[in-house]
Amino acid sequence: MPQLRIGLAQTNTTVGDLDGNAGRVLELARQAHADGAALLALPEMALTGYPVEDLALRTSFVVASEQAAAALAKRLADTGLGELVVIVGFLDHSAESANRVGLPKGSPRDAAAVIHRGAIVTTSAKHHLPNYGVFDEFRYFLPGTTLPVLTIAGVDVALAICEDLWQDGGPVAAVRAAGAGLLLTINASPYERDKDDTRLELCARRAREAGCALAYVNQVGGQDELVFDGDSMVVGPGGELLARAPQFEETLFTVDLDLPAATGHPNDTEIDGIRVDRHVLSAEPIPAYDARAPQISARLSDHAEIWAALVTGTRDYVRKTGQRKVYLGLSGGIDSTLTAAVACDAVGAENVIGISNPSRYSTDHSVTDTEDLAARTGLELRSVPIAPLVAAYLDAVPVGGLAEENLQARVRAVVWMAMSNDDNPSIVLACGNKSELATGYSTLYGDAVGGYAPIKDIPKTLVWELARWRNAEAERRGETAPIPVHAIEKPPSAELRPGQLDTDSLPPYDVLDVVLAQYVDRDRSSAEIVADGFDRGLVERVIRMVDRAEYKRRQYPPGPKVSGKAFGRDRRLPIASRWQERAQPDR
Amino acid sequence: MPQLRIGLAQTNTTVGDLDGNAGRVLELARQAHADGAALLALPEMALTGYPVEDLALRTSFVVASEQAAAALAKRLADTGLGELVVIVGFLDHSAESANRVGLPKGSPRDAAAVIHRGAIVTTSAKHHLPNYGVFDEFRYFLPGTTLPVLTIAGVDVALAICEDLWQDGGPVAAVRAAGAGLLLTINASPYERDKDDTRLELCARRAREAGCALAYVNQVGGQDELVFDGDSMVVGPGGELLARAPQFEETLFTVDLDLPAATGHPNDTEIDGIRVDRHVLSAEPIPAYDARAPQISARLSDHAEIWAALVTGTRDYVRKTGQRKVYLGLSGGIDSTLTAAVACDAVGAENVIGISNPSRYSTDHSVTDTEDLAARTGLELRSVPIAPLVAAYLDAVPVGGLAEENLQARVRAVVWMAMSNDDNPSIVLACGNKSELATGYSTLYGDAVGGYAPIKDIPKTLVWELARWRNAEAERRGETAPIPVHAIEKPPSAELRPGQLDTDSLPPYDVLDVVLAQYVDRDRSSAEIVADGFDRGLVERVIRMVDRAEYKRRQYPPGPKVSGKAFGRDRRLPIASRWQERAQPDR
Repeated sequence: MPQLRIGLAQTNTTVGDLDGNAGRVLELARQAHADGAALLALPEMALTGYPVEDLALRTSFVVASEQAAAALAKRLADTGLGELVVIVGFLDHSAESANRVGLPKGSPRDAAAVIHRGAIVTTSAKHHLPNYGVFDEFRYFLPGTTLPVLTIAGVDVALAICEDLWQDGGPVAAVRAAGAGLLLTINASPYERDKDDTRLELCARRAREAGCALAYVNQVGGQDELVFDGDSMVVGPGGELLARAPQFEETLFTVDLDLPAATGHPNDTEIDGIRVDRHVLSAEPIPAYDARAPQISARLSDHAEIWAALVTGTRDYVRKTGQRKVYLGLSGGIDSTLTAAVACDAVGAENVIGISNPSRYSTDHSVTDTEDLAARTGLELRSVPIAPLVAAYLDAVPVGGLAEENLQARVRAVVWMAMSNDDNPSIVLACGNKSELATGYSTLYGDAVGGYAPIKDIPKTLVWELARWRNAEAERRGETAPIPVHAIEKPPSAELRPGQLDTDSLPPYDVLDVVLAQYVDRDRSSAEIVADGFDRGLVERVIRMVDRAEYKRRQYPPGPKVSGKAFGRDRRLPIASRWQERAQPDR
Repeated sequence: MPQLRIGLAQTNTTVGDLDGNAGRVLELARQAHADGAALLALPEMALTGYPVEDLALRTSFVVASEQAAAALAKRLADTGLGELVVIVGFLDHSAESANRVGLPKGSPRDAAAVIHRGAIVTTSAKHHLPNYGVFDEFRYFLPGTTLPVLTIAGVDVALAICEDLWQDGGPVAAVRAAGAGLLLTINASPYERDKDDTRLELCARRAREAGCALAYVNQVGGQDELVFDGDSMVVGPGGELLARAPQFEETLFTVDLDLPAATGHPNDTEIDGIRVDRHVLSAEPIPAYDARAPQISARLSDHAEIWAALVTGTRDYVRKTGQRKVYLGLSGGIDSTLTAAVACDAVGAENVIGISNPSRYSTDHSVTDTEDLAARTGLELRSVPIAPLVAAYLDAVPVGGLAEENLQARVRAVVWMAMSNDDNPSIVLACGNKSELATGYSTLYGDAVGGYAPIKDIPKTLVWELARWRNAEAERRGETAPIPVHAIEKPPSAELRPGQLDTDSLPPYDVLDVVLAQYVDRDRSSAEIVADGFDRGLVERVIRMVDRAEYKRRQYPPGPKVSGKAFGRDRRLPIASRWQERAQPDR
């Protein structure tokens, strides 16, 4: 059997940074070549970044992407890397398709470029376009209809893109009939809790269906709200795991494979509407060499991978939007404390400024727990008491009750924004968790203020779990635990009136989070949840809160998505609706 | 030729209010029956509301919609309206399709129910699913594959839904071969500037292709950000306009038609993949009667229809979210002045509270123009000077420059929110225009605060035009012009520092709005705009501002969409991108 050394590059792409992304491909190609690889594969949309949104419909951007790919091919050859086959995802357009109502303007495609000897040998576009969850690809792309089969060092390598693996039919279904020796898929597959096993199962199943080995390369890093976790892998024809790259690490992952020799199938066959697009790039097998033992990276624990997603998302959002510092309000509660710990891991404590804003209702421990957090992590702590500001407002606008509670939260937010605006470029982090977002238990323009919200997709019970996990991890490493134990153990309170507790307004979080998971994540009805044994009044109260909170959720800053059912563009309710009562834009 | 009296009901639907919407259908059916109609058609999704978002993926909601349609059929028969054929849009699901990756969960469909004699005779689903602009239908619906042809009073009536008219192929292309005497289309087609002629041209073209008359019924009213304008119409087989309903008015529009007798085509034919679904509801023509002269409503002028869209959108958002009062900050400038005039027309001046927040930088005329506005319209004016509040902040957080300018804007917003929160349920209106939104010339959590933004899709130059038009309209009617002339004529200023003018930061609005229309509305590149004769530096500066302002736009409240290129979910850029510099979430 011919041998093939392939490089799978888990790259961290910046959306729209065509020059920077292409430069990174060139650097990785140098490494892969030096390392003896015959083939280097980069992820889906590695030249452009994945969530390009409306840039896909802007002709000047599509042209720039196509030019960047052509220039990359030339630069690779000019620097002596012409023999290396480089497969890279980018944005191109279909020259055959004309604009018409219902099709994306300019006919853009989510495509792969096959680069060899200074030229783009062929391109192929994703066939199955996902349009659920975080994906909106029918808005942006035309589907492809080909299956490229590239003979590389005497091996037939078939090529497909991401969703083509997940849905039945299309190019992947044609791989067996096309007689490929390796199915290579390039991906931009976002992290999702517990998704890793699904991916391995999927790769194993498709490898068995295709009757050949399967190589899977994925993006890594944060791109707006998406967080990619890498997790590139290779499975054998029987579905057995041969190699697996580390999660959340930018790396060039090299794998040696023994693959069947190309069989010389007829050219240009068509299989169930998919045209097989054959190119012989190098027919001769590579002379035999000593293969390296494959690497199978250990998987992260559930908590470790969630933590990595929060840290990665925060780090890349801050870095890619060009911020130097992050500011956040610190109440001494567990949400802002955990957010601060994420921020310190993401950008370094020296770039984190915590602001304590004690009021007349603040407890002593809100201050001491905050000071303890600063001492443990090394973040900079500043204190701006808000009592005189609130007093000035109540002089001008005498209000009480909920209006006064909201007022305090907003007075704090104005302070954070003033400090951040005065230290440009910097960003304010919002500290709300998913349970709060779901129920609307927060103040619009108050604690909801900021440019990024690291824990917005983390339910409160998981907030506590992650806090304990992060402390245990520190102890395991012999480091100072970042999170004051008292912040984990005390009962949660917004401290906006004397003696206030979250449980005055919400069910206990262990109950609330289960009901929310059923209603929000699983779309189950109140009747079904009640049938599980929950109190009807409680369930209906929670659902009413969720439905009414949609406006607040839409105004919330972006944050790293870690569940398949994160709030955001991909999950939303109508606002002016009577399905449940969801009238109020604010409380 | 048989005669047929048809009722086209331009209804104002509330999303999710199944009981209320069904009750309205029943009431309209009573009117249509009393008026002698044989057929009553209601718009697409008239039972559920059009933008149901994720409710379409919630099984309990789909089941509730199906039950509401079945109950409506029974109530119609029970109240003696069983002989009237009622065609109404609703949400149902495909019983044949199983859930699989890539298809909407629960197999929902955007469907029409044909109700006769107490039962749903047949249903059919929209075939072409739009997924551009404000539409995301691939996320939510499965496509239909049938063309119902219903014999009603001896006339064959074919039925199609909205987008099936706009795209080629599908059920509408099968109407001629199916031999229909009338093509009835039910629609949820949002208002768009200058779209009315497009609709008439489209109806005329499809009528000629189908070789029969075409009746078009559309929603009216605001549903979240969408505003529907009605504009229902009937055209003859040659494309000639026979009847047209008024824009922006909820009405039952009745039309008498002479139509060809049903020809007895074979049952259950299939034409290009579309199954013709025939049902004879009543074979006998109606005895001859004296037809009424058709009504062809006069079209509104460009400015009148835009104004109607703003007033309709604002009125319905406020009403459907259950607010009693609206609050807005009044600076004396044209944007807040025009917004106040829209609000007074929408909900009545007695429900509008304007808040004046003079600062040390406010001009005298900012106060006098505001008082003049209140006197002209009758809105309630309250004054809360902000100098002491700003002084208290600058004591606690000494900042200057842009940070101080933003601080003032935010101090005002906290006052508005406190007053609104203290008068529950009420809503704050944001007063920004499209030119500001495009360039990011506003303060996040400052003037951008609110639950609805009536003029967010109106460029500044059009703001002035509408102000002059509204005053002229008042004079035409012999009423007091609502808008102080000085507010229209003075140079625009944010008044956040001494002598500040918008032109310190922005190009003159007559130039800016043309460049924005090219870059935002037409997706043209900087090179193309420069080639039109604009200064390169100016064009690049404007584009940089637009690209950087994406975060602020996403945080802006919803507002009535009046252009095909409104900012919002349907038009957005990646935030963490280098295509242009768009790093800052705020400045």
